[in-house]
Parts: sequence; C-alpha cells; structure tokens
Amino acid sequence: MRLSRSFIPTMKETPAEAQIASHRLMLRAGLVRQTSAGIYAWLPLGYRVLRNIERIVREEQNAAGAQELLMPTIQSAELWRESGRYDDYGKEMLRIRDRHDRDMLYGPTNEEMITDLFRQSVRSYREMPQILYHIQWKFRDEVRPRFGVMRGREFLMKDAYSFDMDHAGAVVSYRKMMLAYMRTFQRMGLKAIPMVADTGPIGGDLSHEFIILAPTGESQVYYDAAFEEVDYGSSGSGGFSYEDAGDLHRFFELMTTNYAATDEKHDEAKWATIAPERKREGRGIEVGHIFYFGTRYTKAMGVTVAGPDGKPVCPEMGSYGVGVSRLVGAVIEASHDAAGIIWPDAIAPFKAAILNLKRGDAACDALCEQLYARFGSAALYDDRDDRAGVKFADADLLGHPWQIVVGPRGAAAGKVELKRRATGERVEVTPEEALARVG
Amino acid sequence: MRLSRSFIPTMKETPAEAQIASHRLMLRAGLVRQTSAGIYAWLPLGYRVLRNIERIVREEQNAAGAQELLMPTIQSAELWRESGRYDDYGKEMLRIRDRHDRDMLYGPTNEEMITDLFRQSVRSYREMPQILYHIQWKFRDEVRPRFGVMRGREFLMKDAYSFDMDHAGAVVSYRKMMLAYMRTFQRMGLKAIPMVADTGPIGGDLSHEFIILAPTGESQVYYDAAFEEVDYGSSGSGGFSYEDAGDLHRFFELMTTNYAATDEKHDEAKWATIAPERKREGRGIEVGHIFYFGTRYTKAMGVTVAGPDGKPVCPEMGSYGVGVSRLVGAVIEASHDAAGIIWPDAIAPFKAAILNLKRGDAACDALCEQLYARFGSAALYDDRDDRAGVKFADADLLGHPWQIVVGPRGAAAGKVELKRRATGERVEVTPEEALARVG
Repeated sequence: MRLSRSFIPTMKETPAEAQIASHRLMLRAGLVRQTSAGIYAWLPLGYRVLRNIERIVREEQNAAGAQELLMPTIQSAELWRESGRYDDYGKEMLRIRDRHDRDMLYGPTNEEMITDLFRQSVRSYREMPQILYHIQWKFRDEVRPRFGVMRGREFLMKDAYSFDMDHAGAVVSYRKMMLAYMRTFQRMGLKAIPMVADTGPIGGDLSHEFIILAPTGESQVYYDAAFEEVDYGSSGSGGFSYEDAGDLHRFFELMTTNYAATDEKHDEAKWATIAPERKREGRGIEVGHIFYFGTRYTKAMGVTVAGPDGKPVCPEMGSYGVGVSRLVGAVIEASHDAAGIIWPDAIAPFKAAILNLKRGDAACDALCEQLYARFGSAALYDDRDDRAGVKFADADLLGHPWQIVVGPRGAAAGKVELKRRATGERVEVTPEEALARVG
Repeated sequence: MRLSRSFIPTMKETPAEAQIASHRLMLRAGLVRQTSAGIYAWLPLGYRVLRNIERIVREEQNAAGAQELLMPTIQSAELWRESGRYDDYGKEMLRIRDRHDRDMLYGPTNEEMITDLFRQSVRSYREMPQILYHIQWKFRDEVRPRFGVMRGREFLMKDAYSFDMDHAGAVVSYRKMMLAYMRTFQRMGLKAIPMVADTGPIGGDLSHEFIILAPTGESQVYYDAAFEEVDYGSSGSGGFSYEDAGDLHRFFELMTTNYAATDEKHDEAKWATIAPERKREGRGIEVGHIFYFGTRYTKAMGVTVAGPDGKPVCPEMGSYGVGVSRLVGAVIEASHDAAGIIWPDAIAPFKAAILNLKRGDAACDALCEQLYARFGSAALYDDRDDRAGVKFADADLLGHPWQIVVGPRGAAAGKVELKRRATGERVEVTPEEALARVG
C-alpha cells in the first residue's frame, strides 16, 4: 500500500486520555479510534494486526481438532434464565428490549447458547467428543472502560467449548486446549505462562490463566526458568501430539509442576524451595483463560446424550477463552520502545516499509517502485512528499519489522539500507538481498 | 474433516417454519440454526460458505483500491442526532441504553460513523480520494423476520463509503464499485444485473441495485441478453482497469444503456423496442445496492478538507452495500435441485466429499484414507457407519461440487466413481485422476 493514499492517521501528540503505552501507541500509530467510551473502530493498520492474530488463533484451534462456527452477538434472555445466570450477571450485561418487548442481550459469553446448539444436535456418544469455538465480538458494559482495547466494552474473543462423555475425556480436551494456547502465543512471538486460577464452586485444579510477559504488565509474576526453555512446536512438527494422551499428559505435567504464580496466588514458602538460578520475576498481562466446569450447564439445561449402553449421560464441559482484541494491546505492551511499536514478524501489518527519501529523484523513485511491485501488499511504501526525518520517525512508530531505506546516493549505486526495527541493526545491501532477507 | 466427528446436524424432515428453498435447505443441511427470531448461529458448514463469500468480496474490494477497516457494532446515538437520522429511523433501529443511561444503538448502517472517522483523519485534497469499507454484523429489528438468512435481523454486510473532492471524482468511485460488484458476483458463479434504483431527494441516476438471477427469486426482472455476454474479468486479467477512466466509462455505458428493470420499474414502451431475440425475463433477488448521495452527510456533519487552493471543500460521498449473509441464501436459491444444494466451486464449503460405501472393508478404508490425506481440509470424508443410500442422499443435500465414491469392487480394482453434483455426470477413474479433476 502507498502511504500517501492510505488511511493511516498518525498523531504527533500523545493523546491525554491514554494512560498506558499500548493505548498511546495504538492512537498515535493510527491503529484505532475510540467511537464511544470503551468502543473502538479498527482502522486499516490495526485491523490487519487484529486479523493476523485471529488467523493464528484459528489455525491453532483447528489443528487441535476444534471446529469453528459463529454464534450471533444478540441473544435471547430465555437461555440465560434457563441456566440461572440472567439475574446474577449484573450491570456488565448489556440488556436490550426489542420492538416486540422481548428481553435480549448482547452476549458477554456463550456457554448457554453453545449448550443449546449442542442439545439440539448431538444425540449419541458416537458423535462425541466435540470442541466447538467461535471468534466473535462480545460486549461487557464495564463501569469504567480504560486502557484502550485492553479493557474495552466491545471486544473480540475466541471462545471454545468442549463436550465430553466423562471427566477423563474432559481432562484430555482441557490439555489439548492448553497446548493449542501455548502454540498460539509462541507463534505470535510472546512468552506465555499458564498460572493456576480460581475454580470457584467447581473445585479441582482445572482452571488456568495465560499470562504473557511484558515489562509494563498489570501484575507481578513469579515463575520457574523451565517455562523459558520449552519449545511447544507445532502440530505438524513432531512435537507433542494432540492424538496421543501420553504426550498431552507429559505436556500438562511440564506446565503444572514447575512453579508459576501471579502475586495474588504467590506462595513464598514454595518459592523459597526453588533454586535461585531458576527463579524468574516479571510483569505480566492476562490474555486467556481455560476452565473446566463439568456439568454446570448441561445439568441446568437438561442436556444428555445416549451412552454406549443406551443410558443418558450428562456431558462434561470446559470453556477456553482468548482475548483477541486485547492481544493487540498486550503485544504492544510486550514489544515497544520509546520510538514506537516493534511488531513481531508473525502479526505485523506489513513485513516491511519502503522509505523513499527523495521523491522526484529518478533513481529513488524507480528503485522504490520496483521494490514495491515485488512486495505487493506485504509492504507499505512511504511515497509521501515529506522529509526523511518524518519518514524515519513514522516507520519506527508504526513498527514494521523491516525498513528498506532508499536514498539518492544508494539508489544511484544500486544499494538500499535495510534496518531491523527490533535491534536497530542497519546494513547496506542490494535490493535483491533486501527482498531475500525480508522474505 | 471426518463426517463422523463433525458438527453438521442434518435434518431428514423439512422444517415447517421454512417457506423458501434456501431456508429449508440451510436448516436441513445443518448450515445454520435459529437462536431467536431472525437471528442465526452459523454452524461449521454454513460458516465455511459465509467466509468464502466474505473472502471474495474482500479481495474484489481491495483490488478496486478500497481499504478495509472495522467499525464496532454498537454506536452512540450522538452521531445519529448530528446527521438528523436518529429520530427518523423508526423501530427497525435497535435502541439500547447503557449502564450510564447513555443512548446507544446497534448499527443498521454506518454513514455517520465513517463520516466521523473521516472528519477526524483527513485534512487535505492530497489524501483524497478514499474508499473505506468494512464487513460487519448489522442489526435491523424487522417486525416480521422471515426467509431465514435472507431477511434476518442480525446480518453480515459489506458496506463501503467513498469520499471525493468533486462530483466527477464521485462518479469514478461509483463506477469502480460497480465493476468490483460485477466481478464479485461473477466469481461466485452468479449472474448479476445492475438495475436502476430510486435516488430519493438526491436525484440523478447514480443508484443501482444488483439483482442475481434465481428461479425462485422475489421479483420479476426484464433484461437485455447483453448482460449474459459480458465477461467482467479480473483486475489482473487485462479486462477493464480501475485506473483507467476510459475503461470505467465504457464499462458503465455497457451496464446502463442495455435494458434492465425489475417489475417495479419495468417500462413496457421501452421493452417493446427491444429485438425479441434479445429479451430475457426471469426472477431475481437483490443482493447489493450502490448509491451516490453527494454531500448529504458531510454537510450535515460539517466535514471539509482543504482543496489545492487552500479553501475548504465539502467531500462528495457514495455508499456501496453487499448482503454477505444474504448471499448464502441467494446462492442456494440460484443453485439447488430437489435433492439439495449445488454449491458453485468458488464458495463450496468443501471441494469434494469422499464417500466410503463400506466401512470395515480394508480396500475401501485404505483408499479413502489415502484420498483424505491428499485433500486435507478441502474434503469432507463420509466415514460414518451408515448405508450407502444415506451417504448418497447427504452428499447431494450438502451440495459438494464433487463426490468421490469408493465402493469395495472399485477399491479392489483401484478405481473410484467421480460424480459432478451440478450435472449428475459420473465417471469411473483412478484415484489420481479424481484428484486431478477435482483440483
């Protein structure tokens, strides 16, 4: 895309309302604009990142055997009365009355609806187990929305739901999702750690939050160095297999025997037993939560499937959430500097920016056009009639993994400068070398 | 995907509430389920089709130079008061009050919001023109939702908005979108015809509905055979170019000088002047609408950009809508028979079904697994422990473009039967030939 024609409204000033780095940078780099309190429009650059994250989440869900569907945003209050949550949910639920005076709501989550769809569709153990997910906008009417997309009211979430015939099956589904999550975050260039979370009245130990490390994170975290050493691989790469219960067990042990806790759950006595060289501390941001809740909804909603002996069985469920829009902010918290965003390669809106330092110079223009033609939509071409300093600053702000800098002297000699945003490293190379390195 | 493990709840009975073919078939084939009046959950098979349609719409919008962003579903009433439409819109608008008693609404369309985003971002003629679009769920609180996803309350729409410095520019944007629409529908295997629509107080001739031909369509249409003869090409294929005003003019003439009208606008006198061999009549379904409305919103909302002489100019706008979820129903209306859906190749959920006629037969099982491994996610493998008749019927119902039928005799001889759903043609081929033909 040519920057001169693009809808990327950057801001020079730091917006006063933004308290945290990601919020400031998302506004300054023209990724989003607030349209009402806690509600954002995703502008072209931000939307590209959101879609990249969504794609990785989707691919890893599919690899784990989850099936994608899409439930609507507006739900009937009836289902929530059936589960008993309609009155409990409080003011965070956006309640709506339609023109026929029916009670509706903007879904904050989908346990009831997925349980209802399952109830209508699945009759027999032969169709089990099932993991179903969707990536859909949700609404929670936060009393004080803040921190940009990190705590918005309308937000994009991937929520998956598993249905199993028994507890052992539910544990396998839970482990599959945990593995899918670790692979998802690893692909995004994030270091994530699963931490035990509250299970409430369900009990047991099957509730984990996923915290990604970020220097500006909201909570203090303590963890064993083991988490820095695991490569979660991919489903095609011969690492842990989703089809092998032994693999899943081994993976789950690895995730749960090594120490990891947020300050809320931190246990000084246990921490003291860990070898000093294995202790790690940092700040973190919650970006996902997985939770086993057994027959909480299937019982309340009277759902059964026929077991092998023909007797009705009430399926065991779990739910698995990732904050997709929240992740855009979280990635920026984890990866930025004073000059701007530093996108991990896998989710960057563009692989590279091409900076034309002297528009109107025949050699510069020709070389830039040539490079731009080769990259196509993978590059943002800064063809604006602006000073070099403005272009450098904007490229750093927007955070492209690579900058290809084309100046008149270099262009005349058939050379460009290639800059890696993350390290600041610059090398003079031929255009062909630049293309090859950016990939 | 293995059908035995998939969430594709087909129905044998024809649902009583469904009055039209697409509604019946979408329920029977397990594409959607209604969750409240006029609100649907898209099950895995239906969601694949929806996403395929969305992808084609997106690619053609991008090829025309439109930029994608995403506006939220929930809007503030303030903007609609600014344009004067808040009180006019009536009961179809789903009005919401949030916890702080602010008037909000579920967007039925986005003219106000996009105009506001434009107003915040674009200052100068140098950043013009702009065509911005999003693909987002909308809500219209229809008094009597019906016909399944064809007239639902929550529906997915692509809406684009153009901003130009003058009327001539707006005309160019309008023609670009018209061309993008004809390519979009052609890629989906649909025959679409643009028909003049009402412009209301704006006047002029820049308002067209796009009608696709379907034997069960809602309105009678009359058109010149010329529309059957045009190949709209693609932006890469050397057909009409978006960058060439002459091409766009020639294309627009072709679309507007040949006769085309719905029964509402049908002109018997004009129709009588057309050579009988060029007259075509049929039924059609509206799936898109493009509309030039000048400065209707930019004036009301006080939007200007600086022209080349520094003076403020009120930009001219147009809007361009495609009913993405409606198209799923419309395609089925255009392409089905008594046995079920007939998906056009470009939007089919799976290219092919592999039918294992005798599970447990070693040769059948081995050959099916082999084929399935080669197709990956492009094929649905009917591995159910069911009678051949059930598998044939379901494959016809689900409408895969190709069926690869593997029976014990054929498998022993290294042969499969390849059936083309659209024509019913069957040929015996080797597995390699089947793979090559399905592609």
